[in-house]
Amino acid sequence: MPHLPDMPGALAGNPRPMPFDRLDTPSAIVDVARMQHNIERMQSRADALGTRLRPHVKTTKCTPVVRAQIAAGAQGITVSTLKEAEQFFADGVTDIVYAVGMAEHRLPQALALRRRGCDLKIITDSLASARQIAAFGSAHDEAFEVWIEIDTDGHRSGIRPDQPALLDVGGCLHDAGMRLGGVLTHAGSSYELDTPEALAALAEQERAGCVQAAERLRAAGLPCPVVSVGSTPTALSAATLDGVTELRAGVYVFFDLVMHNGGICGIDELALSVLTTVIGHQPEKGWAIVDAGWMAMSRDRGTQKQKRDWGYGQVCTVDGVPMPGYVMQGANQEHGIVAVEGLRSGEDIVSRLPIGTRLRILPNHACATGAQFPEYHALAPDGSVQTWSRFHGW
Amino acid sequence: MPHLPDMPGALAGNPRPMPFDRLDTPSAIVDVARMQHNIERMQSRADALGTRLRPHVKTTKCTPVVRAQIAAGAQGITVSTLKEAEQFFADGVTDIVYAVGMAEHRLPQALALRRRGCDLKIITDSLASARQIAAFGSAHDEAFEVWIEIDTDGHRSGIRPDQPALLDVGGCLHDAGMRLGGVLTHAGSSYELDTPEALAALAEQERAGCVQAAERLRAAGLPCPVVSVGSTPTALSAATLDGVTELRAGVYVFFDLVMHNGGICGIDELALSVLTTVIGHQPEKGWAIVDAGWMAMSRDRGTQKQKRDWGYGQVCTVDGVPMPGYVMQGANQEHGIVAVEGLRSGEDIVSRLPIGTRLRILPNHACATGAQFPEYHALAPDGSVQTWSRFHGW
Repeated sequence: MPHLPDMPGALAGNPRPMPFDRLDTPSAIVDVARMQHNIERMQSRADALGTRLRPHVKTTKCTPVVRAQIAAGAQGITVSTLKEAEQFFADGVTDIVYAVGMAEHRLPQALALRRRGCDLKIITDSLASARQIAAFGSAHDEAFEVWIEIDTDGHRSGIRPDQPALLDVGGCLHDAGMRLGGVLTHAGSSYELDTPEALAALAEQERAGCVQAAERLRAAGLPCPVVSVGSTPTALSAATLDGVTELRAGVYVFFDLVMHNGGICGIDELALSVLTTVIGHQPEKGWAIVDAGWMAMSRDRGTQKQKRDWGYGQVCTVDGVPMPGYVMQGANQEHGIVAVEGLRSGEDIVSRLPIGTRLRILPNHACATGAQFPEYHALAPDGSVQTWSRFHGW
Repeated sequence: MPHLPDMPGALAGNPRPMPFDRLDTPSAIVDVARMQHNIERMQSRADALGTRLRPHVKTTKCTPVVRAQIAAGAQGITVSTLKEAEQFFADGVTDIVYAVGMAEHRLPQALALRRRGCDLKIITDSLASARQIAAFGSAHDEAFEVWIEIDTDGHRSGIRPDQPALLDVGGCLHDAGMRLGGVLTHAGSSYELDTPEALAALAEQERAGCVQAAERLRAAGLPCPVVSVGSTPTALSAATLDGVTELRAGVYVFFDLVMHNGGICGIDELALSVLTTVIGHQPEKGWAIVDAGWMAMSRDRGTQKQKRDWGYGQVCTVDGVPMPGYVMQGANQEHGIVAVEGLRSGEDIVSRLPIGTRLRILPNHACATGAQFPEYHALAPDGSVQTWSRFHGW
């Protein structure tokens, strides 16, 4: 892992670092060395597979993180809201895919972004939506670049690779003078898998389905330069990405307990944690009460149905070392209940975690936990902390 | 229910209302008439029970809402963070209880608030914490007003009414010159109940336990002027509140599906909903895809273990009329999956909810859903909409 002096200059945020031990709680801590390691891991993976990497920035919505991804070799970004597009375009990123099906009422905003020089791509998965895009684009003399969303695992949106609608949508857009830019899929069901074999099989299914869709379009005489696939688990599990031009992934930048349960990352690759303070106890129950509740951790219980349920998170020392068996087992808005799994009789939580003890909690889902905070506190290997703001809302 | 012209002037927010049909999606919609009805319902309840009402503002963190609560008769507020105390003190509210166990590192901020004229009360439930407060207060010549947190249902923090520690904590604070202001309890396990009998029994347990604690302190010669109890379900279920001086409740201002499942409110009392747009379909599965995912609804699945599981929320028409059987059954970050429970063969989701349809989703938990948004959009009975900002973070 790199040390701070080797990190890209883009990582410079707040010019006045503050001491870690002065941080208020709860705070969202980013371990910068782990983040940089994760960025390089995914970039190396994309490089080895021969594809471009287009990170999904919905995980962080944070400029210094995205700059680090681009500095490491990412080409363009993926966004989940037009607000993200606006913010990162203002930061100088021009190559942006808005990866949620285009709603008609958002077309004026998309047009305005393109007119200001943003190379914004939009997506659709229905003839009804394609017609709206085509009509609005034609009426405003704008050849929107549109990608068609493909459904390769049945988990959410998209047209299946073999459905007739694929060619109808492609034809509608192309005939109206829109720029048919490619196909895009996201095998989101990968979050439910936890063996290398199942993940590799789904990655191949995601690749093959998206390539099949592209080939059908091309065989019909329609352009399809981009074949875009990805999720963090499939991106790290694919044996090959033949026919794919770009990989999208988001949560890899921080990883989390859901990814760890899936076998995608080691616990020492989790770059996001929530700093909290012990404010009370219920000694007879073996509980320590901390000042991070669900408002800090989020209500995400993504590990609930996985092979290991971590409650609201794995408890670590203030230095980030996991404390085996210590989890946040319950959460109210500003209270977390920390307990030891399989508490042994006589185990003394009060002396183990006295009032005032600072802890760090590894979250189930980094995207959800990060969103609870107005900013991250980026902890560098030298112990200094910078404030990295992230944005909120739509 | 009052109409807009009857509402307190304090409800005036953004001076330039916008048309409801111009709102972007997702947006958090507050039905102002329902909110006002809910405020009056709880205030009448407190008046009838002979107690003051001190609303918990963590639900909304929103100035116009809190002003409406105070205009209706609330005396003081409850906060879950010192940021809330700072913000509402800046708005002119001085009588504030910070209802999370005091952490030593926050004492300087509490002191600064009091020195600026905020009548801030803090709480503790341990001798260790009481000693920290006493030491800091003594060192700074500040007689902090401290309330002792009582555990009346075992769900989280507090000293049980019969524990010896109660008198130790009270004595420590009193002897050090702190102002022992009262006792406070919150029967949060009320959220798990759903019969009037069980709720009334818990309300009595909450009342009796807190009064018992106060009487023990008084019998030991310690002052205990305030006896503060409450949660929305117990507040609305108590037969009497003899010996109680004030009632605290938060979520009643909007109510939500968890409260509705508990039998606390009718579905037509739910004042918060999320406005969303249909952006796609999977017709064979009976799914409509909407642009409100968990980022908008929150990850709260509070109805999962209740008698009725509403998924991520009950779907309503854009006018707020519930559509029986339509729920948001799944959610990704910016996608919701709307489906009909027990879909009948041949039911056509595409023609029922065509692309572009606007819907409103009633949430599981109003505190969690509201926190996902930087602002509410307050919909008045005349159809006008004002923007009410809410604050985020710590």
